[in-house]
Formats: sequence, C-alpha cells, structure tokens
Amino acid sequence: MTRTLRLAGAQLGPIQRADSRAHTMERLIALLEGAAKQGAELVVFPELAFTTFFPRWWMAEDDPELLGYFEREMPGPQTKPLFEKAKALGVGFYIGYAELTPEGKRFNSAITVGPDGRILGKYRKIHLPGSKEFRPQQQYQQLEKRYFEYGDLGFPAFWGPKSWNAPILGMLVCNDRRWPEGWRVLGLQGVELVMVGYNSAAYDPNGGQAEDLELRTFHSTLAAQANAYMNACWAVAVAKAGVEDGAGLIGGSCIVDPNGRLVAQAQTLGDELILADVDFDACRQGKEKMFNFAAHRRPQWYKPIVERVGAVEPPLP
Amino acid sequence: MTRTLRLAGAQLGPIQRADSRAHTMERLIALLEGAAKQGAELVVFPELAFTTFFPRWWMAEDDPELLGYFEREMPGPQTKPLFEKAKALGVGFYIGYAELTPEGKRFNSAITVGPDGRILGKYRKIHLPGSKEFRPQQQYQQLEKRYFEYGDLGFPAFWGPKSWNAPILGMLVCNDRRWPEGWRVLGLQGVELVMVGYNSAAYDPNGGQAEDLELRTFHSTLAAQANAYMNACWAVAVAKAGVEDGAGLIGGSCIVDPNGRLVAQAQTLGDELILADVDFDACRQGKEKMFNFAAHRRPQWYKPIVERVGAVEPPLP
Repeated sequence: MTRTLRLAGAQLGPIQRADSRAHTMERLIALLEGAAKQGAELVVFPELAFTTFFPRWWMAEDDPELLGYFEREMPGPQTKPLFEKAKALGVGFYIGYAELTPEGKRFNSAITVGPDGRILGKYRKIHLPGSKEFRPQQQYQQLEKRYFEYGDLGFPAFWGPKSWNAPILGMLVCNDRRWPEGWRVLGLQGVELVMVGYNSAAYDPNGGQAEDLELRTFHSTLAAQANAYMNACWAVAVAKAGVEDGAGLIGGSCIVDPNGRLVAQAQTLGDELILADVDFDACRQGKEKMFNFAAHRRPQWYKPIVERVGAVEPPLP
Repeated sequence: MTRTLRLAGAQLGPIQRADSRAHTMERLIALLEGAAKQGAELVVFPELAFTTFFPRWWMAEDDPELLGYFEREMPGPQTKPLFEKAKALGVGFYIGYAELTPEGKRFNSAITVGPDGRILGKYRKIHLPGSKEFRPQQQYQQLEKRYFEYGDLGFPAFWGPKSWNAPILGMLVCNDRRWPEGWRVLGLQGVELVMVGYNSAAYDPNGGQAEDLELRTFHSTLAAQANAYMNACWAVAVAKAGVEDGAGLIGGSCIVDPNGRLVAQAQTLGDELILADVDFDACRQGKEKMFNFAAHRRPQWYKPIVERVGAVEPPLP
C-alpha cells in the first residue's frame, strides 16, 4: 500500500521593500503554475511570503507602511488571486503571512489551503526570535518580538483531504523548526508531513562568532532532517532567499523523508521549485518500531521541559 | 577565553560471547593507554562495554550466564583494573555496564569517573528498546525490556572537575540519543558535553523495510549532530561495532561540536580511538543567542510531551 502525494516547495528569491504587491503576486502565481504543470498537488511557500521581511526595519506602531504588511482577512483583496488560481488548478498550498485580527492582535501566521480552496489548518508562530527593542549596534534589526504576539493556537495537526490520501499534516514557521518541542507535539498527533516556511539571516546579525551562509544553511537542513527522523514524518522547509533590502537570507529549501534523508534541495537563492513524490506509508516503519511512542516514551522524566523555561545549572559539587 | 578538554572516544570492536573478561579488560586498557598517550583527559567507552551485548540472547532469569554479565559494585573485582589504570594515568572515563543493585534491581547504566578515580555521575538508561517477550521469528532477540528496569534517576547533569575547566556534563545510553526529550532535559541544566555509549544493530532485526549499515549509521550520526546543535553543546557518541556473535553492529563513533558539525568520526568497525580538543566556551554563542531558552521557549504549548505517552490522531474533519 502506498499513500502518495506530489509535493512542491516554492522557494522565493528576495522581495524588496520597493517591490509592488502585484509584482510579488505574479511571482507566486508563476511558481504555483510551474508546480502544477509538474503535477504538484500541494505547494509550500515561505514565511511572510507576500512582502519583504519587514521585521528588519524599525517602524512606529501606527506607521502606515507597517500596517500595509498585514492581512486583515485571508483571502483578502490583495491575496485573492493566489487562492483563485490555486482552486482553478486544483492545487493546495501552505503560505506564511502577517496576520492582523479584528481585535487588533498581530501574529506571524501560516495557513494550509486544500485543492478546493478551503482553509484546512491555521498556525501562529510560537518561537518568535529577535527582540522588542531597537538595537543601535545592528545594521538590520530582528523585531519579531515587537511586531508579533506569541502564537496562541498551540501546534495543531490536521487531516489533509482524501484526494491527498488523507495525511496528517502539521505546520511550523521559520525559527520553530529549530525547537524539537514543536515537532514532538506534532509527532504526538501522528503527523506525517510537517510544512515550514522561513526567512533566515545568512549571517549572525548580533555579531559574535562568525556564522556564514554555509553554516546557517547546514543548521537549517540539519534541524529539518533530524526532527523528521525522530518523529518518523516527512518534512518540507521552504526559504525566502537571497539579498533582500541589502540583507542576506539563506536558501537551502528541502524535502526530507522519514529517515531524515534529503530527497530534494534548492540549488539557487532565487525563485525555484523543488518536487518529490511523498509516500505517507513510509512513515509507518518508524512510527511502529523505533519511534513507537506508546511503547518507548517515559514522560515522567520529561517534566523539566514544561516546568522550566530557561536553563538552571546543577548544584555545585 | 577558552575552556578546553582533550576528549577521546574509545570505540570497541565486537566482544564475542566466548571472550574472557580478562581479554576484554586488556582491550579496554590498551585503548585507555593509547588515548592517554595522545593527551586525552576523558575517554568515553560504549554501552555495556565489559561484555557482549547479551540482550540478544534469551536466558532464564536465574541463568548463571545472565548473572555473570552484571556488576554488583563499581568498581568490582573484575572492573577494578580499569579504574586503577585510569587513576594512575590521571584520565577520567565514561563507561556503560549492566548494574545489579543490592535490592536485586537491574539497570543498563553508565558512570563518569574523574581523573582522581572518584565517580562524578551515574545514569540509568531510560529509553529501553526491544521487548520483554521472545520473538520466535527473529534470529537475534532484543530483550532489554526483559533484562533491565527503566532508569529511575532522570537525566541528571553534573559538574566536571576544575582540571577539565569545570564543564557541565550529561550522560545518555544508546537508544536515548534518538529521543530529543533526554537531550532537552540535559540542555535545561546547561549541559556542555553529552556522552553516549551505544550498541546499535546494523540492520532491522524486525524485518520490515530494509535498513542497512549505512542508513543506520546515518541515523545515529544525525541524532547526535542535531541534538548537540539544538542544545548548543558538544556530543560524543561511541559504539561497540562489528560482527558480534554473528549479529552486525554499526560503528560511526563521533565527536560533534555545538554547531552540529562532525569533528571526528571512526572509520572502522573495530577498536579505534577518535580525539578532539573540545572548547566548552564554544557553547556560549548558541546558549546566549539562538538557543537562549529563557528568552525563546514557550513551555505552555509543550504540555502534550508530558501528558501523553503515545500518539493520538487529531479528530476527523
């Protein structure tokens, strides 16, 4: 028995601050059409895929530019063309966007849309990196903690449609992929495919020890590979890449199998599709044997994971 | 500032069921002396390093052969030569062994011994793989759940001595290294070096989808690399390798830096030393920035990790 889905990752090159929304929408639709032409049934776009990565800039809370980066509804007037095109093609998609709720709350969110245009699942990023404060020593800020609230939906897994062979799906956003807790909460719901969009700096914005494009791409790929293996699931992680507003972003978008092996990886820092035929039944070996959670986990010893936020050193000898 | 330690992994080739304890002790001491000659201050041996991996054989609970695999004290009459030699050389070590307590409890344990011969820390394996039952369809059993109780000491981190630059140390045993929960509990104690000994089958003993030596070595290395990265610590994972009593064991012993990069890896399936100069201050970049737990973790969303043992699928749509 095989339960397959043809999956695409749609890596984006940079979206400059000066680029129009209409121009970016043309690129998104071109990737969607290219993936559909190659038979993709589900296309995964990056985090904050409609605009530049605006948390690198300090703006006042009521700056019209800042408010212009947020979506008040999904689909909304500017995002509707993507929904319409995907539905016409019968292709589903994951996409990251900045969400402004009717109550005025702001989140770094992602949704998964089915081939019929219905929203199947929604996620709000939990592991916000960066700071609330302006850091004068930095050329580029990382102000996610200023512009977004921490996600308040947990890590909900959800079912994909029968036409995809009814997989259990989960979403993460960017920095979440480095935190094994989020993956494990999805794994504990039997997740078979974890989708992640990201914008990750190609260097260390805080200075400190040198971390370059190559090392940071390695970190990103390693996290996807190992967490897929340890939860016996597929993973797809998709970048916005290249030099955006003068700041470097890693690429390295990848599709990983439940053994943690790379099945596809982007080779450029621009708009690029990666594709794979994903067999959800390939998760069974891991879920039933090595990672049979019910048989092997010992939660009574995991309590510090929920009882402690930061590290506490052991008592001195 | 650098806080360095010269670290060795002492991979063992197979220990056959017919091998004498004295012969195995000669091999352990030869590895210890070889490491000391190359300046090692801490030598990490495998899991169950004094004997063959006896859980592959079904034995009665009171079989004298079974009881002969267990240590009633540490050091005991048969293990004392290793302690004496290490103390004479001023070298510390990690070693795995089968523990029989005065109360008659049996554990798959590991200890870390300081350069002065004092036991610095003790650990009892929590993630026992295998089964309690005989599986008639298998040529080799995996009876850890029969021969051992689940570890009852949690995942305690502890301090190494000042002569090692006072690192925070942690231990895991074999299958534990595939479970991010154990690493995270150590990470939440500020661990700077995680030591792991293992005996891992080079093929899938349950049949099922083919997993070979190469894939299983990849799994082992991947788990060490990613969990070291995600906890910003060093890791050393050391195998008993080769064909033991007719059953294949992977090698691939490795030392990994806090970026998840391989610093050293064994090339054979026999007795082999790997060495690295480990700088504990290299953990600081990760612990203070990307993996600053106090700044970025959100434990209120991690509750399923402790409230659930096995996976529970989401409700049908």
